[in-house]
Amino acid sequence: MADCIFCRIARHEIPATVVREDEDCIAFRDLLPRAPVHVLIIPKRHIASVNELTGADETVVGHLVAAARAVAESEGVAESGYRLVLNAGPDAGQSVDHLHLHLLGGRELGWPPG
Amino acid sequence: MADCIFCRIARHEIPATVVREDEDCIAFRDLLPRAPVHVLIIPKRHIASVNELTGADETVVGHLVAAARAVAESEGVAESGYRLVLNAGPDAGQSVDHLHLHLLGGRELGWPPG
Repeated sequence: MADCIFCRIARHEIPATVVREDEDCIAFRDLLPRAPVHVLIIPKRHIASVNELTGADETVVGHLVAAARAVAESEGVAESGYRLVLNAGPDAGQSVDHLHLHLLGGRELGWPPG
Repeated sequence: MADCIFCRIARHEIPATVVREDEDCIAFRDLLPRAPVHVLIIPKRHIASVNELTGADETVVGHLVAAARAVAESEGVAESGYRLVLNAGPDAGQSVDHLHLHLLGGRELGWPPG
């Protein structure tokens, strides 16, 4: 989508601190980090939210999680621990309508998760 | 695994309030709910954590998320919003060593997610 901020980051039209990229996804630091490590992992293809995934997209989230694991390794939090979060809709505070997986780590994370 | 509490729930050896089940996964209410809707979705096959997923498992998480979406629908929170959470390791407070996806909804969820 031409105006989607995350699509524009995926096309490198907007600067972002990219920590990982492959053919299908890109990972970059959250502009408002809420943990020492706070990275967003997004598919390059525009998918609005979890609710928009179809059966044919079953590998999309798996690939995002695999990329998140690699980021956890490279950021040094794979062993200490990390949390992966997907927000869908208003009650979850989804702020950009492009599917994104949050990875948070580097500190003890409380419970409940929001 | 014989002694894993989530494997035992998947085999129906321990009672749980099951809200969805198919060949590969089972979804049941968290015993300590932190939101009006708080469901755990787990693969029936024992996988200790996100860190144990291999490339061959890329569909596992996708299937859990697809099941979570169906649960969000049946629990009436698909439109109002919900949060999906995977915890890995000590900083995230992973409490059972069997991969499980939390679904929380039915109230406004704060930020950060823990």
